This record gives sequence, C-alpha cells and structure tokens, in this order.
Amino acid sequence: MPLHPLRRNTNVSWQREEVGRTERAGLKGQRSCVLWFTGLSGSGKSTIANCLERLLLTQGRHTVLLDGDNVRHGLNKDLGFTEADRVENIRRVGEVARLMADAGLIVLTAFISPFLTERELVRRLLPAGEFIEIYLATPLTECERRDPKGLYRKARRGEIPDFTGIDSPYEAPEAPELRFDTSDCSAETCAGIILEYLAEMKLI
Amino acid sequence: MPLHPLRRNTNVSWQREEVGRTERAGLKGQRSCVLWFTGLSGSGKSTIANCLERLLLTQGRHTVLLDGDNVRHGLNKDLGFTEADRVENIRRVGEVARLMADAGLIVLTAFISPFLTERELVRRLLPAGEFIEIYLATPLTECERRDPKGLYRKARRGEIPDFTGIDSPYEAPEAPELRFDTSDCSAETCAGIILEYLAEMKLI
Repeated sequence: MPLHPLRRNTNVSWQREEVGRTERAGLKGQRSCVLWFTGLSGSGKSTIANCLERLLLTQGRHTVLLDGDNVRHGLNKDLGFTEADRVENIRRVGEVARLMADAGLIVLTAFISPFLTERELVRRLLPAGEFIEIYLATPLTECERRDPKGLYRKARRGEIPDFTGIDSPYEAPEAPELRFDTSDCSAETCAGIILEYLAEMKLI
Repeated sequence: MPLHPLRRNTNVSWQREEVGRTERAGLKGQRSCVLWFTGLSGSGKSTIANCLERLLLTQGRHTVLLDGDNVRHGLNKDLGFTEADRVENIRRVGEVARLMADAGLIVLTAFISPFLTERELVRRLLPAGEFIEIYLATPLTECERRDPKGLYRKARRGEIPDFTGIDSPYEAPEAPELRFDTSDCSAETCAGIILEYLAEMKLI
C-alpha cells in the first residue's frame, strides 16, 4: 500500500543552521574534504588510509575514518551484500561523509565502492574540489595473493557470491584525482604523496 | 527469500583503527559527547541547539548539529513517517552521532524522538556519561500555539496521521540529564544552563 502523501518526507522545511561549515572548518585551521579510497579488497585502502590519518594527526589536522567494517557493524548493519544493499551502503556512507565534511573534518573513507555511478553520486553531494577520489589500482592477482581476510579463497570456492573482482565487476575510475598501484609502492609512500597533493590543492 | 548466510554481514572482521577517539577529541581540547534534545514539535529543540552551538563555537569547541531536517533531506531521504520508518530514522541518527563522537566532536541532535526504547538504544551505543538527554517538556498547548511550521493545524485537520502529541504518543524521558519547559525559559537561558552543566560534568 503506498504511503499517504503526507507521510512522505515532503512535509519537511529547512531549519536554519546558525553555525556553518566554513566556521566549523575555520576553527580547525583546515578546509573540509572527503578522501575517497576505492579499489579491490586487499588493494591497500584501509592500510593507506590509516597511515595517512596518522600523518594528518601529527600535523594537528582533524580527521575521521569511515571504513566498511566500522560502518557495517553499526549504521549499515541492516544491509547485506546484494547489489542493491551495496549501493545503499555507499549512498549512506556518502551522506555521512557529507555531514562530517559539514562539521569541518577531513574525512577518509575506505570502501571497495565498485560502481562508477555510486562514486559519482557521492562526488555530487559535495562542493566542487572537496571530493578526492583515490584509486588503488593494485592488480587482482596481487590482491588475491595477499588475501588478508581470506575472502578471495572463500569466493573462489563459491562461498561468497557476487564478490568484486571474481564474479562481480569493479568499474575503475575514469579520472581519479590520484591513482596508486601498491604492488610497487609502500603505504607510507602513497600516504606521503597524498599529503603533498592536499598541500598543493591548499586543502591543508 | 532469506539471504544466503554468506551475503549477510557476518563476513566482516574488525579493522584496526590506528587513530582513536581519545586522540581525536584530545586534539580539540574537549571530550566527546552527544547532546540529545527530545520533545514535541515546536518545543524549542532546534532553537536551543542552535543557540548552544553558537555559544560553544565562541568557546572554540568543535561541534556538529544533526536535526530532523538536514538528515531527512540526505541520509534518511528514503524514510517516511510511519512508526517503523521513524524508529529507523532515529537508529541511523544514533549511529551517525556515535561515529561523530568517535571523531572527537560534541554532537547536538534535535529530533522529536518520541519513544523511550529508541532513545535508550542510542544511549547504549555510547560510553557511559557521554549521552546527555535534554528533555524539552514544553506543554502541548504551548507547542500548538506556536506551531512554527503549521504542522499542528494540518494534523488537527487529519492531514498528517500519527503526528506526535495528537494521534501518536510522546513517551517522556524518565530520568533525563536535563529538563526545560520553554514556556517560561528563553532559549538563551536554557543554552546557558546546559553550558554550565557540561562544565560541571567536565565535558568542556
């Protein structure tokens, strides 16, 4: 049964928010942005994000890290791994990243986020220049060799259907802001290059 | 059809997060907490929250404000106003508030959040002492007289079913940390008292 039209969220008027994002970021001496790591499982997203967050902290930057694991145990614990659920997972993460950028934070996210359209959706949520797409182009063979969580082995045995890179596609970014192949670049080196990029872009 | 067990999110292992909430809050010279405003529509939640956020900013505190309006246009735009959707709305807000508290912020939320159980659920998401429930006990007659968004008039005409206070219950907090009746207390006075409370509790 369709909802009564007045039960949909068209009855909502915007609340004037007295403290704005510029003020919140200004207090922290930085500009807001979202560093969106994307790539196959095992490509190095969380490792580099953790390493970069540590470097940013050393510089006194205000950050937050969202990753598939801490979000899936809380906000998105009602979602599974079907394609529809995975798209909704990324949509919610994008909205939360936007709210956190509004709070003046440098937001790091580490999700496979395999689909072009879902990443574009998040990009469009944010002001121009504040979505930094970081593509970890580590080849599947290398990711599968590492297999840090044993997921590729399970997927090859058919125990995880729709696993990205095995029987579900990964759509590579067409014009990411940054691109790394971690088979020949350490997490520390990648994090250092991202830091330089943020400084060049005057984000830090 | 139930999901294949391996498509549920039991395949998720915890990611070690290198930078912790204490470090993130420490950088800001404050402790994390969630100031949860609850009460009828028109009871003064957003007005006091905005006023308090302004005062906190003046003190150099790092804050963020979540309210029914900015969240419903983004993260929760897929949700309507049925009871199930309203409970899911508050669950997600609670999870986002937790992530933001993990980021070291003082989080202010302004939602009717009429049900005891949903508020208790959010309280349990947070470390002891970090959930501050602020009950706006402004009587229905006063809220309806103000009717800032014209919603009570619509509800009385039967145009909004399940409207809190009219044909849907508001379950008053049994032991809120703070309680105000804004029919005899200005937003500025309430915000000032909350600020004193935060200082007493050594949260700021």
